[in-house]
Amino acid sequence: MAFSFPRGTAIARIVGCTTKNFPNDFDPVVRMWVYEEMIGNEKLSEIINTRHENVKYLPGKAIPENVVAVPNLVESCKEANVLVFVVPHQFVRKICHELRGKIGEDVQAISLIKVSMKGLSAPSAEKLGGVKLISDEIHEILGINVSVLMGANLAHEVANNDFCEATIGCKDIALYGAMFKKLFNSENFRISVVEDAHTVELCGALKNIVACAAGFTDGLGYGDNTKAAVIRLGLMEITKFVEHYYPGSNLETFFESCGIADLITTCYGGRNRKLCEAFVKTGKSLDQVEKELLRGQSAQGPLTAEEVYYMVHQSGLSEKFPLFVAVHRICKGEIKPQEMISCLRRHPEHL
Amino acid sequence: MAFSFPRGTAIARIVGCTTKNFPNDFDPVVRMWVYEEMIGNEKLSEIINTRHENVKYLPGKAIPENVVAVPNLVESCKEANVLVFVVPHQFVRKICHELRGKIGEDVQAISLIKVSMKGLSAPSAEKLGGVKLISDEIHEILGINVSVLMGANLAHEVANNDFCEATIGCKDIALYGAMFKKLFNSENFRISVVEDAHTVELCGALKNIVACAAGFTDGLGYGDNTKAAVIRLGLMEITKFVEHYYPGSNLETFFESCGIADLITTCYGGRNRKLCEAFVKTGKSLDQVEKELLRGQSAQGPLTAEEVYYMVHQSGLSEKFPLFVAVHRICKGEIKPQEMISCLRRHPEHL
Repeated sequence: MAFSFPRGTAIARIVGCTTKNFPNDFDPVVRMWVYEEMIGNEKLSEIINTRHENVKYLPGKAIPENVVAVPNLVESCKEANVLVFVVPHQFVRKICHELRGKIGEDVQAISLIKVSMKGLSAPSAEKLGGVKLISDEIHEILGINVSVLMGANLAHEVANNDFCEATIGCKDIALYGAMFKKLFNSENFRISVVEDAHTVELCGALKNIVACAAGFTDGLGYGDNTKAAVIRLGLMEITKFVEHYYPGSNLETFFESCGIADLITTCYGGRNRKLCEAFVKTGKSLDQVEKELLRGQSAQGPLTAEEVYYMVHQSGLSEKFPLFVAVHRICKGEIKPQEMISCLRRHPEHL
Repeated sequence: MAFSFPRGTAIARIVGCTTKNFPNDFDPVVRMWVYEEMIGNEKLSEIINTRHENVKYLPGKAIPENVVAVPNLVESCKEANVLVFVVPHQFVRKICHELRGKIGEDVQAISLIKVSMKGLSAPSAEKLGGVKLISDEIHEILGINVSVLMGANLAHEVANNDFCEATIGCKDIALYGAMFKKLFNSENFRISVVEDAHTVELCGALKNIVACAAGFTDGLGYGDNTKAAVIRLGLMEITKFVEHYYPGSNLETFFESCGIADLITTCYGGRNRKLCEAFVKTGKSLDQVEKELLRGQSAQGPLTAEEVYYMVHQSGLSEKFPLFVAVHRICKGEIKPQEMISCLRRHPEHL
């Protein structure tokens, strides 16, 4: 089960090829759930199934013929052994509730949803007691194993066959690691598999907070070395956060694509960086800048910062996470962006 | 002993302040060796000692009055307890031979020379059997302990008091770590001290090879995620190289400013990246592009790649370092830049 948006279609193109290449391992028919819409007087699912192209979300890129668009969600997952979640995060809960009781017990799921916090769709972090991972949400509702695939791989670069990497986090690596690698690994989409899936998923969420900090310092006119310090101190806080709240992480996992690589691209090119730079430069409110700049897309950094802020605050650990805390407080207007740097000066990494 | 070039002067400004702030720990007079030259009809050393500004190499930045310019090298180091090496790398050997026998035995040295390979000044790596570190060179000639200070800190950003970080590698951390930190740490120049000095120094040299790879993929028009993959795989080769040839490194050291932070800035902003991007785009020879683009400055990446190539080749380890090897072979014209990516596809990290 993928989804018809750009990222889902880009992934379906890969999975369509790998399943065809390994007929002994996989059923060659890949069913892709498509949220139905009309394109002129044709249904999107029918266009995909006849022209083998997603004319709306990924035009010009051929989809293998063994990828079949299915507009009915439950139908698309029927008899599936593997579910691939590539949907906007705010749909996850609704989708899972619809699928509940209608899939097999030994189904393996994998989530490619980069925003690992529930963000907007969730009640406030304060009530929940903080962060919740998408993989845990899926597991709780459907009762199945959930692996994750993260890393520095944007939909359009994957679709263009640019060389990029991804990290799969699979708790049951001995049983399912090789299968998942076979399903996604291709010449230009290189997969590593690690066991500490929570680390992989948390990197994908927490990086957005660091990108906000990078945006603030960019907006203030600081140079490359200040930004490098922000990225590095941000990574140190990510490792400390994971270590404290999800013990058992492996330091080497932060060297994977899900770690440093995704953090770097997000801090240079991502939308959280862009938003926070504009916030400093224009002096407008964050909401206002988001409306003007992102055109309906949302930036997860400020939301994740808020969730993380409550967690570290409640644990009495604010002093250990000065970057995370400063990002939240700047986003809320409690302190000025200029104070980003003074927070870093007192960073425990330098003590 | 610093040097009058921009980086030396920027560091002298910091050391001038810290020594004044800790009169119980340091002699407040900091002697800075200045390679004498005439500025109009005045000597540069006299300008520095009267106007407290290095009008030629760092104009507009006040130098503390306790920093005294000394044009005679041996004189500048007389009775010194600490020697700070901030000189162009090709002068190191000559300077050390001049100082031999003229300094105390218990002098502590620290090298801030970012190019850790001997590069141009050395006989070919093939004859030498590979890489040699500047700190080892100083140690061999002068017989004193040599620590290193590296990290993402360019002279002009340090001089502007931009917030940045540095890593000190000090083998005798228990005895001298705190002293060195006190000597360099300031509000906007934040120091961490680690024990595995060789790792710190090697990061500073090997990063330039990775920056060449990033320049090639930039030149070929690849996007941010390919570059993130290059940076990550480059870092993995750096860690493997250090582990193999200088055993005893700590994985955490690569998370310091000397590691990921310096690597990131070099791969985005550095001259090796710029050179290699232009090499691909223009189709000219590397020498030609270097002449046109760098105006007399040299790029260390191709030289370091050559030294490293011989080492891994002689050890029969070429397969483990496909990025390092590809950079060398592209620089030498043995393979086309386009083959950079095919080398990465076979990277052992993905096996």
